[in-house]
Amino acid sequence: MTADTLLDLSRSLTGIEMDTAPQTLAAYGSDQGPVLEYVNPLAVVWARSVEQVQQILRWASRTGTTVVPRGAGTGVSGGAHATAGCIVLSLERMNRILEIRPEDELAIVEPGVINADLNAAAAEFGLMYAPDPASYRVSTVGGNVATNAGGLRCAKYGVTRDSVLSLDVVLADGTLISTGQETFKGVAGYDLTSLFTGSEGTLGVVVGITVRLRYLPVDVCTIAGFFPDIESAAAGVLAVGRARVQPAIMELLDAETMVALDTAHGSNLRSRGAALLLIQTDGYGAAAEADVVRSVLGELGGQISLEGSEEALQLVDLRRHSRGDAIHTEHRVGEDVAVPRSRLVSYIAELNRMAREHEVRLKVVAHAGDGNLHPTFWVDKTEGSAGLQRLDAALDESIALALAMGGTITGEHGVGQFKLRWLAQEQQEQVLELQRRIKAVFDPAGILNPGKAILTS
Amino acid sequence: MTADTLLDLSRSLTGIEMDTAPQTLAAYGSDQGPVLEYVNPLAVVWARSVEQVQQILRWASRTGTTVVPRGAGTGVSGGAHATAGCIVLSLERMNRILEIRPEDELAIVEPGVINADLNAAAAEFGLMYAPDPASYRVSTVGGNVATNAGGLRCAKYGVTRDSVLSLDVVLADGTLISTGQETFKGVAGYDLTSLFTGSEGTLGVVVGITVRLRYLPVDVCTIAGFFPDIESAAAGVLAVGRARVQPAIMELLDAETMVALDTAHGSNLRSRGAALLLIQTDGYGAAAEADVVRSVLGELGGQISLEGSEEALQLVDLRRHSRGDAIHTEHRVGEDVAVPRSRLVSYIAELNRMAREHEVRLKVVAHAGDGNLHPTFWVDKTEGSAGLQRLDAALDESIALALAMGGTITGEHGVGQFKLRWLAQEQQEQVLELQRRIKAVFDPAGILNPGKAILTS
Repeated sequence: MTADTLLDLSRSLTGIEMDTAPQTLAAYGSDQGPVLEYVNPLAVVWARSVEQVQQILRWASRTGTTVVPRGAGTGVSGGAHATAGCIVLSLERMNRILEIRPEDELAIVEPGVINADLNAAAAEFGLMYAPDPASYRVSTVGGNVATNAGGLRCAKYGVTRDSVLSLDVVLADGTLISTGQETFKGVAGYDLTSLFTGSEGTLGVVVGITVRLRYLPVDVCTIAGFFPDIESAAAGVLAVGRARVQPAIMELLDAETMVALDTAHGSNLRSRGAALLLIQTDGYGAAAEADVVRSVLGELGGQISLEGSEEALQLVDLRRHSRGDAIHTEHRVGEDVAVPRSRLVSYIAELNRMAREHEVRLKVVAHAGDGNLHPTFWVDKTEGSAGLQRLDAALDESIALALAMGGTITGEHGVGQFKLRWLAQEQQEQVLELQRRIKAVFDPAGILNPGKAILTS
Repeated sequence: MTADTLLDLSRSLTGIEMDTAPQTLAAYGSDQGPVLEYVNPLAVVWARSVEQVQQILRWASRTGTTVVPRGAGTGVSGGAHATAGCIVLSLERMNRILEIRPEDELAIVEPGVINADLNAAAAEFGLMYAPDPASYRVSTVGGNVATNAGGLRCAKYGVTRDSVLSLDVVLADGTLISTGQETFKGVAGYDLTSLFTGSEGTLGVVVGITVRLRYLPVDVCTIAGFFPDIESAAAGVLAVGRARVQPAIMELLDAETMVALDTAHGSNLRSRGAALLLIQTDGYGAAAEADVVRSVLGELGGQISLEGSEEALQLVDLRRHSRGDAIHTEHRVGEDVAVPRSRLVSYIAELNRMAREHEVRLKVVAHAGDGNLHPTFWVDKTEGSAGLQRLDAALDESIALALAMGGTITGEHGVGQFKLRWLAQEQQEQVLELQRRIKAVFDPAGILNPGKAILTS
């Protein structure tokens, strides 16, 4: 069966780049999410054009082969993990910026364009592509669309969905459709653009993306505030809101995160406080807003960086690039819940209680402006399955509590494969069923990225 | 049949307010959109609770009665027009603000809450609900959700969809579901919230809405610029963008609109220029941005209002409330296309050519910040059907040209019933078919607002 399929693949898709070498299959068999059970794909194919994606999906439909679409493989929920009998369809070589139209403030790109490359090209026109996941230097815009990626600047500029105007999508049967429009506003028909955004390649393969660009800010001010405890730092988040300042970035780091940064970079953050709040204001009001932020945080007992602090800027860079600190002697799982903003403090307090009770290690960073937390839990690998069980128990409890507080199991990483086990806790059966039926409208044979994003039974 | 249905209605739905008086049916038989063929509903029912909406839809499903959900009836595309054999389900009496949570920066409301009432309540906490359609003093939040309403502040704050976090929806069979989450970010499952937003009551009846609130700006500056021609005013729109100023409001009014305002209010706008640009900046950077705007517009030859101009503010108010100037001696149709920003000038020039060629009158206002235009075409009623034919021909040509420029047939009003005739020009058959199949998932019997929003064949 496998050999037949592969033979048919290579005969049918002449001219399409593919590889079945073991090291390639291994490299493309998973993304950066936790792997529950490692599966090799049958083959990896790289599309270079819309037509090739159509050819590949027509072939997959004809042969009943499942297809896992993949950008740069930087997802952290297993949305691009291979599943049994699949081919991996890599979009990374469809990486042309097709058009930047500065006066229309939009760009049209292929899905494999790296987020940072789009930003570099837009910057030449004084523009930016706002969504900035921590992976922005390596992740693709198509992958960002597939997961509806967030990032640091979301509180002010919105998530990926808020920047996507139009999508070209190849459906499971090879049909090419266009959704949305090239204008900032448009309400013709149902919002298929938003439906595809965040659907993790389960409804179609995104082959073209029109995004709205925003203005590169004329000024940026960065403030670092060291606090004696996480409570006062979190109070700072709410106080900045009450002062009616909308920061572009508002990151909250707990004491353990500060220790980790100190260890990695030889800094002395932890000695200066037990919580760190990093705030960036931007635009014409940046300096005035920064003054207000410094004043408000100072009143709460924070040690606040001075105007024009180089260190504050470096700390934001450090935070921005602090993703993916895999340590081979540990089992680590990074979480991605969101809670209503006012619950940040109590949620973090409860996380610490859970970590103590389950005897797991914990550090927490949060995109505090929108209540999106990334707790990382870990245990030593030497503990074996006992450690893994405690890790899982802590994860389960942390998710349940986020939901009880009116939160969500995933703020920006996506459900993928890894978070499926919690989805039914968040969404009622009727909602799960509607999603299954929508999936069936777009992909009746179920060949697109099975076992991801939605619960299929 | 009708009498039987009505008898069944009154027997089955005891305790639910309903009315079948001719004047009530007439008042609720249409919204403010053009009426192609007037149809009376069988009855008007008013729900007071989620349970009553469920009861009504269960009854409608059982009897196969079609249901037209309705907010305040201020839509302008006929999305709430009655259709043959329908009941109108008014949500206007479900008008409680259930909760405002200032620290979470969100509000939970019933669908019948008036947009302005929510804003007044939020203002007590220094917050605002950003979407501000011209009808905001009379339209409901539920109606705004149904049409994904826009408004003046969209360029900076986004449209309705960008403020909706979560929806409670009663499906056609009476099932109550919740979509989305109470957090600013969330990517669990498909984005059903965006799917319902703008679906004009064809997929379900929205009975509860959680919206994100924004900060009431600490400062607002208003600039009025009079220009010798529409070209230089439109150049001003792009120049403000190049200066990296993101105004909250950027309205463009043509000469005919200025004449209309002069006639209605005794002002002398037209004598001061042939195009008017109204710009509002807000937030901590408002004053600095306003300085830049005045400087940029002055360089283009505009006569610019001075700092703190009372008149500029009055003009924005005038513009905000200039909607719906129905004149009984004329046939008027207000359009709602959007084009990429750079095409504003050439599109307006073409509109004027069309008006001349088709011998119809024309005035144009635009939410210029996002390329959304509201041309109003009209002819004298004394001309009879000849005038109407020329009016229709001008409309058709204006739509076709917007599409040819990469635009859309509706920026913010919705397709409703009136714009259905142009939908297939914008969307390919496969996209129309996907929408039909999504409709079938949510409302297999087709009882919800038939003949609106999507092409059913």
